[in-house]
Amino acid sequence: MNTSPNDKKALALHKKLQGKIRIVPAAKVKNRADLSLVYTPGVAAVSMYVKGDAERARQYTMKGRMVAVISDGSAVLGLGNIGALGALPVMEGKAALFKTFADVDAVPIVLDTQDPEEIIQTVLRIAPGFGGINLEDFAAPKCFDIERRLVEALDIPVMHDDQHGTAIVVLAGLINALKVVGKKLTSARIVISGAGAAGAATANLLRVAGATNILILDSKGIITEGRADLTRHKLELAASTNFSHITGGLKEALAGADVLIGVSGPGLAKASDIKLMAPKAIVFALANPTPEIMPDEAKKGGAVVIATGRSDFPNQVNNSLAFPGIFRGALDNGVRKITDDIKLKAAKALASLVKKPTATKILPDMFDKRVAKVVAKSIR
Amino acid sequence: MNTSPNDKKALALHKKLQGKIRIVPAAKVKNRADLSLVYTPGVAAVSMYVKGDAERARQYTMKGRMVAVISDGSAVLGLGNIGALGALPVMEGKAALFKTFADVDAVPIVLDTQDPEEIIQTVLRIAPGFGGINLEDFAAPKCFDIERRLVEALDIPVMHDDQHGTAIVVLAGLINALKVVGKKLTSARIVISGAGAAGAATANLLRVAGATNILILDSKGIITEGRADLTRHKLELAASTNFSHITGGLKEALAGADVLIGVSGPGLAKASDIKLMAPKAIVFALANPTPEIMPDEAKKGGAVVIATGRSDFPNQVNNSLAFPGIFRGALDNGVRKITDDIKLKAAKALASLVKKPTATKILPDMFDKRVAKVVAKSIR
Repeated sequence: MNTSPNDKKALALHKKLQGKIRIVPAAKVKNRADLSLVYTPGVAAVSMYVKGDAERARQYTMKGRMVAVISDGSAVLGLGNIGALGALPVMEGKAALFKTFADVDAVPIVLDTQDPEEIIQTVLRIAPGFGGINLEDFAAPKCFDIERRLVEALDIPVMHDDQHGTAIVVLAGLINALKVVGKKLTSARIVISGAGAAGAATANLLRVAGATNILILDSKGIITEGRADLTRHKLELAASTNFSHITGGLKEALAGADVLIGVSGPGLAKASDIKLMAPKAIVFALANPTPEIMPDEAKKGGAVVIATGRSDFPNQVNNSLAFPGIFRGALDNGVRKITDDIKLKAAKALASLVKKPTATKILPDMFDKRVAKVVAKSIR
Repeated sequence: MNTSPNDKKALALHKKLQGKIRIVPAAKVKNRADLSLVYTPGVAAVSMYVKGDAERARQYTMKGRMVAVISDGSAVLGLGNIGALGALPVMEGKAALFKTFADVDAVPIVLDTQDPEEIIQTVLRIAPGFGGINLEDFAAPKCFDIERRLVEALDIPVMHDDQHGTAIVVLAGLINALKVVGKKLTSARIVISGAGAAGAATANLLRVAGATNILILDSKGIITEGRADLTRHKLELAASTNFSHITGGLKEALAGADVLIGVSGPGLAKASDIKLMAPKAIVFALANPTPEIMPDEAKKGGAVVIATGRSDFPNQVNNSLAFPGIFRGALDNGVRKITDDIKLKAAKALASLVKKPTATKILPDMFDKRVAKVVAKSIR
């Protein structure tokens, strides 16, 4: 592994910290009087009051404020299946962001199993103490079933952030990018490269928002109902996209397209591919750290609004714009399911923070303190 | 439920706090430079470095400092089986004590299952991110098997505190109580009332410490090898205690006994029972909040050293004297199993903090800042 100067600094910092979060008491325990309230004997009255009553537990215990950030390490960042321990530093980072951006208390839990049924049972069994479940870095396609089953079974919000966090921020950015180029979501031709967690959820949310003309590609090409090799979740995608039954690869998809959203990986497209698109093209190349096409190359191909996942280019599409506010809002408002309507409202709220979108400013800055508040407030 | 003034204060405090712990980042995330170390892209180098390597994870992640406090709520305090939500305020209080007394970061996890096999599987699956497991308020006898299986399967310390925390503090107190009355552990006749988690573990640890003459009673009377109704863990107790095969109830057990340890419940004994004991009797009446015999009644019966679980009488036997230091020491010293030898050392270290034991001072104060340090240091 090449170790960059930043990597070296990151390694040194992690060694110094030995974990990026700390658990601290919310009240001091300095003497017996404190102890008699925080612990025995006073705690017994609280235990009897909240037992078997989730609503009371939300008010009197950590269940009202605590989110579990859970991963099996099967698809961590762009690193692939690196398992529970490999996932842990990422989940700790996420917990740090939850607190920093939205004052949400979040606990990393990494799992010593990658079996979907075992994952589901484990999450169900540890759920009582939590007010929300952020699923993270579970590989597709199992992530879809795991999330669906947990959403159905639990009465607390469950969200797979790789799906919906990404979809919300992409939609927010796209709303403003379309304003910049004077096009409409309902009529825009949208191409999504990548049918994994992020691609599938983005396609779904764009449809909910009104998009009618979406093509989605996996590594074999455009997903269309005629293809014989489709898994269940791709069959669902085929049924809800590509109504003109276009076949082929990226070039066929891009012909006349208004928007390209890359959530697949580096080396997808060149300037000559972008030239196949309609005038005033929008390109979101979100693979990290290396985008599907570099911004200067996309520009050379005629793209007018370009976004990436990186902080060193304009228009960073980053989940941190969504997940802290989503869970903050869900906890504040007693929301039990993160519905499509909630995701849509969150995306619109996020987009609204940029009063006058330009080609280099379609999303708010992730350190903008209004972000989590506005997203949280949008969730009722 | 009668609500005492203290209960009312406890309820009000819990409502105000909404949970007694908070998760805070160990490092500030104020700008993109911070983010590039704590989260992407820098975190990827850490993930690749620690993946599949528990030793590196201990150094670079929360695994080096974080203990899970896990309960199924099947035997919470003296409240019985009040389930996951009922257990949550107690586990939060425990997490607050872990931090306050020993700077151990502890996360409460309450389980939506009371099935031993499901409990074991769940704990195994969430274990990778933790450096220790504190099992709490699991009912006997399932607690014995659950702990044994987890200790065998995991390479991090697992301790059921209701068993071993209690046993360690009882042994520490008894070491000093015996000094006060001028008797020896090896020859003392010891009666334990209660063959649940605390009673069984106490009997075992006292034997490890050198006690040779122990009788243990359950609700049916003295446990002896002849009894037909013994479960597996009681058969084990029968094999390691009561070598004179004494039968009967409390009165038969107490005849000539030097020590009575009550871990069963209120209303066990009267002054007339204590009078059956040998001169200079020692009575530990540890049921909370109402002891097996009140101190003045025990004194009337001739007891010379009397301990309870309460803070409003001398000689409080409280697990908080043990568990924070035990886990602090285990984390500091890379201890993978809390062995009998470790428990013995911890008890002796705890006892050593009282330089000149007296009838009303056999244990250090739980707010004595030396306690966790000395216990932790004893664990090598």
